[in-house]
Amino acid sequence: MPIPAPNLYPSFNIVRLSHVELTVTDLAASRAFYVDTLGLQVTGEEDGRLYLRAMEERNHHCLVLREGDKAVADALAFKVYDEQGLDMAEKFFKDKGLPVEWIERPFQGRTFVTRDPHGIPLEFYTRMDRLPPIHQQYKLYNGVKPLRIDHFNCFSPNVDESVAFYSELGFRVTEYTEDEVSKHLWAAWMHRKGGVHDMAFTNGLGPRLHHVAFWVPTPLNIVDLLDLMATTGYVGNIERGPGRHGISNAFFLYVRDPDLHRIEIYCSDYLTVDPDHEPIKWDLKDPQRQTLWGAPAPRSWFEEGTLFKGVEPQESQLAAQPIVAP
Amino acid sequence: MPIPAPNLYPSFNIVRLSHVELTVTDLAASRAFYVDTLGLQVTGEEDGRLYLRAMEERNHHCLVLREGDKAVADALAFKVYDEQGLDMAEKFFKDKGLPVEWIERPFQGRTFVTRDPHGIPLEFYTRMDRLPPIHQQYKLYNGVKPLRIDHFNCFSPNVDESVAFYSELGFRVTEYTEDEVSKHLWAAWMHRKGGVHDMAFTNGLGPRLHHVAFWVPTPLNIVDLLDLMATTGYVGNIERGPGRHGISNAFFLYVRDPDLHRIEIYCSDYLTVDPDHEPIKWDLKDPQRQTLWGAPAPRSWFEEGTLFKGVEPQESQLAAQPIVAP
Amino acid sequence: MPIPAPNLYPSFNIVRLSHVELTVTDLAASRAFYVDTLGLQVTGEEDGRLYLRAMEERNHHCLVLREGDKAVADALAFKVYDEQGLDMAEKFFKDKGLPVEWIERPFQGRTFVTRDPHGIPLEFYTRMDRLPPIHQQYKLYNGVKPLRIDHFNCFSPNVDESVAFYSELGFRVTEYTEDEVSKHLWAAWMHRKGGVHDMAFTNGLGPRLHHVAFWVPTPLNIVDLLDLMATTGYVGNIERGPGRHGISNAFFLYVRDPDLHRIEIYCSDYLTVDPDHEPIKWDLKDPQRQTLWGAPAPRSWFEEGTLFKGVEPQESQLAAQPIVAP
Amino acid sequence: MPIPAPNLYPSFNIVRLSHVELTVTDLAASRAFYVDTLGLQVTGEEDGRLYLRAMEERNHHCLVLREGDKAVADALAFKVYDEQGLDMAEKFFKDKGLPVEWIERPFQGRTFVTRDPHGIPLEFYTRMDRLPPIHQQYKLYNGVKPLRIDHFNCFSPNVDESVAFYSELGFRVTEYTEDEVSKHLWAAWMHRKGGVHDMAFTNGLGPRLHHVAFWVPTPLNIVDLLDLMATTGYVGNIERGPGRHGISNAFFLYVRDPDLHRIEIYCSDYLTVDPDHEPIKWDLKDPQRQTLWGAPAPRSWFEEGTLFKGVEPQESQLAAQPIVAP
Repeated sequence: MPIPAPNLYPSFNIVRLSHVELTVTDLAASRAFYVDTLGLQVTGEEDGRLYLRAMEERNHHCLVLREGDKAVADALAFKVYDEQGLDMAEKFFKDKGLPVEWIERPFQGRTFVTRDPHGIPLEFYTRMDRLPPIHQQYKLYNGVKPLRIDHFNCFSPNVDESVAFYSELGFRVTEYTEDEVSKHLWAAWMHRKGGVHDMAFTNGLGPRLHHVAFWVPTPLNIVDLLDLMATTGYVGNIERGPGRHGISNAFFLYVRDPDLHRIEIYCSDYLTVDPDHEPIKWDLKDPQRQTLWGAPAPRSWFEEGTLFKGVEPQESQLAAQPIVAP
Repeated sequence: MPIPAPNLYPSFNIVRLSHVELTVTDLAASRAFYVDTLGLQVTGEEDGRLYLRAMEERNHHCLVLREGDKAVADALAFKVYDEQGLDMAEKFFKDKGLPVEWIERPFQGRTFVTRDPHGIPLEFYTRMDRLPPIHQQYKLYNGVKPLRIDHFNCFSPNVDESVAFYSELGFRVTEYTEDEVSKHLWAAWMHRKGGVHDMAFTNGLGPRLHHVAFWVPTPLNIVDLLDLMATTGYVGNIERGPGRHGISNAFFLYVRDPDLHRIEIYCSDYLTVDPDHEPIKWDLKDPQRQTLWGAPAPRSWFEEGTLFKGVEPQESQLAAQPIVAP
Repeated sequence: MPIPAPNLYPSFNIVRLSHVELTVTDLAASRAFYVDTLGLQVTGEEDGRLYLRAMEERNHHCLVLREGDKAVADALAFKVYDEQGLDMAEKFFKDKGLPVEWIERPFQGRTFVTRDPHGIPLEFYTRMDRLPPIHQQYKLYNGVKPLRIDHFNCFSPNVDESVAFYSELGFRVTEYTEDEVSKHLWAAWMHRKGGVHDMAFTNGLGPRLHHVAFWVPTPLNIVDLLDLMATTGYVGNIERGPGRHGISNAFFLYVRDPDLHRIEIYCSDYLTVDPDHEPIKWDLKDPQRQTLWGAPAPRSWFEEGTLFKGVEPQESQLAAQPIVAP
Repeated sequence: MPIPAPNLYPSFNIVRLSHVELTVTDLAASRAFYVDTLGLQVTGEEDGRLYLRAMEERNHHCLVLREGDKAVADALAFKVYDEQGLDMAEKFFKDKGLPVEWIERPFQGRTFVTRDPHGIPLEFYTRMDRLPPIHQQYKLYNGVKPLRIDHFNCFSPNVDESVAFYSELGFRVTEYTEDEVSKHLWAAWMHRKGGVHDMAFTNGLGPRLHHVAFWVPTPLNIVDLLDLMATTGYVGNIERGPGRHGISNAFFLYVRDPDLHRIEIYCSDYLTVDPDHEPIKWDLKDPQRQTLWGAPAPRSWFEEGTLFKGVEPQESQLAAQPIVAP
């Protein structure tokens, strides 16, 4: 099944991924991980929630941590270009028969939540409180020196369907993996903001959140984080990497937070703003797709993920299997 | 004079800066500089022109070198999102009373040239030949490992006017320098593609091209280029840097090609796609604006630039002066 | 068994490890690997041998490649401080009942070969031809930008014995791994030149050469090599890494040459010249000893090695086993 | 005047430079600079003195800060291999007619102070308290991540004489600058521990301490320090750099502490342990000697330095002048 042609004229303009709220079971432990170890900055703390931003961000937050009984993810939030677009977005989801609920979110303007056809909870808004820049307050840089949230990656029970739906929303495929036998998509990377991805899908029991990614300046920041985690009690939280993905060419590291939410730290993205930017196709059987340098990913990386709040995942029907480390 | 509010709804969509043709007086010498030293890749050679691209680019070229008697710059080229937009762009310039000429360019689709109100020659097109990706052909990486063209910077005799005009075109100011006395703009950085700039203006005898910039992965690539240039006969071509600009937070190096065309090599950009992204204001008297680490720029950097083909520059009327190295 | 006190007053002064000759089965293939990929510089080619040096070395060579039927290693060569010391070294080995043979080596002064108690062939000399510096000829830097040979690492059937013998020669233990059950040494790192090691021993079928190591400037050079190897047909030659050893704190990569000789590329050594420098002890059961970041080494890394020419290895009697990747 | 042949057999073995005590006028301000900004670790605080070590050091301290009225330097301290050597050292200085005084130093064993022929106060000892390693406690790394003290650099009124004297002590010249007209030495770099230098001399009003240098892992750590200093009130303390010295090939930065004591931060040393290691000669008129990339040093760098406690400096008689930034 060929990937759909990009929708160059969506009815509203999604600027970029914006933020997500993760429920964690011990907020103090999560703070130690995200703030003291990764280096995200606290921008608010109220109602049992910790609001965080990365170093170059001016939006009030890109990550919200809420203490709760079960480690789940709430809606994946996207910023819409303008208020008219937000109304067009409402119409789009309603026309699809998907539920739309306007809600109040602290630090944000008009906001609604909905879901995609597989059930991934989505949130759309236009305005969030803006904070003064801190990217030149170098005294604050810490941990891996995270610069910005970069993308969400989700397990999908049917990547073909996911790509078709998000293509309509104006997301464009930059790279994808096809199962050469069935001709179905195994995985796809889709962007709005001009990099390799704002949203990616991988075949598997889904929908589940595979990871949230943060962009850092250089591979040496990732080496620094590895050294720090390895000597502060987090060695078991290092899941995969460092390495370079064939797909996206990213230098990457995957770590797990204290609740096993998965965080990717990466750098080495490329620019994809050209409307005629051609997607790159990878074969599921090519191990360099996963890691350019040849090492396969551990099984946990293919199997484990975060449930979305109140969403029951379903099995994929795709028989193909990735190459897993022995 | 306050900077204009960004035009969030321009009548056509300029995707990004695209390319420029520089006339050089010795093509072999320029090839040694751009290809063998900086590491740009040759994608075509015909009619006395050398076509070059950077490592992650799929557009056929970002730089064209043409041998001629006088070292000048031709039109600054921008990619328009679609053919309809190209027609809207034609209308925009004609409505301003600016000359529009449709021309043939090798490797490109429909293309017209025009000029801005100060006379900067501009080129607009939608389609250029696309080449297969080479960003993972690491054997080809060389010199400073340039990844992509990033921006143009021009001297303007009236930065207020330049900013007003490019704002109408949909460029948005990310950072700017104001003369606190006269309240006029001294310099401004404006983007389309989501980074700090596609186009920047600095007060001075203009219009002239101040520099063309290329984006590289890390500061260490710039250190490598300095070592290479310093030991291959190019030590005199190193003009300024390495350093970090206060403005844009870029880690930078300025070098001069054999005809004194100025090239900036830099990294450490940040994302600016939010429609409510706030410009950062700098005071002309703040030396950290120029170099965060305190060292002022040499006089040549403020005074020398490349003439545009057939365009006579005019003096700026702004009395303010930057801080120059003694 | 405690490690022996360092012999602070050896009867002769071994300055550092110097070079080794590897027999390879296809000299052209090895040249492609060592010269075109790793970036070693050719300093001589005669009698079917290729002589190589790293970028900061002035000694004529640190590696000799000789074409032959079987991929073996010849003597491990060490530089002795002066000619008197060379004579004292001869006496030392003769007094131990070990065979000493004075031989002719191209580009070297007086040289003898002998062997250690387990049969590792050793070579000692004082003078080698010196070449002009090239460390500032940055045009020549290539591949991983190897700066110097750093150490040899050998499998030993009895590390306790190896350490005792090399301690007499004045090598000093900087770090070591002990089997906490048997109290025998599992591995030891020993130096002469002031870094973590010139010579290391690991328990196993031996004597065999485990690897030859080269020192590079930063982890980014290792990332560059991985990218290059992964895209030039050498992805299967990447064996382990990148990672950081707990022991020695080195950022490392292990690659195999076309004949499976193992090469370590590493950086991040530390200074060990103090005569009272205390060895660091590691527990065989501590996985961070191997990789600070937690990932165990592949089985091949523990089992495979290069035979020394004409030397039959013997099994170790140590029952302890390292932690191996599943 | 040719540089003297290295004394390969000094009567005692100076292992390396060890430490120095600087008098500062505001200990809190100095602590903010050395501990909170550079990242040195506090190992002791008593009697108005702050004791500091760098990250890989096990000696109790490499820098002592003492509050006093005048910003001066005390004796430059060197570690001697053994106690017998310490007695031989005493004899050496007494035989030269130089004063020897055995003193008590906290955290040290037997110690004497003396001076060199120009009056530089020198300290020799063999034993200092050893501390547990912290080089893998990555949580402690801060600022520029200093790994170890690397060298002292002093103004000398007669570099020929300085080199002759330290050559007798077994220091070996690795690089030197000659005034091609007078044939006198302008500057020289001399080592004991196997790098480019433990001690260097530059022509000028002397003896004065030009700088104390610390070794860091990569140029990026120096970029980090520049960013930090530039945004925490220390921009005026950045004196020179970043750049690469032609001499020593070091990537360097010079900063001034709150009392204007000069500190060099650098990386990219090379190994010099070979007894036949050839010194590299530079011409005083070669600007790349100072900065490979071409920029001359500021005048302050050539003229300002720290007085040694109680030592009156004298003018150099050498008429030659370095190239200074305009």
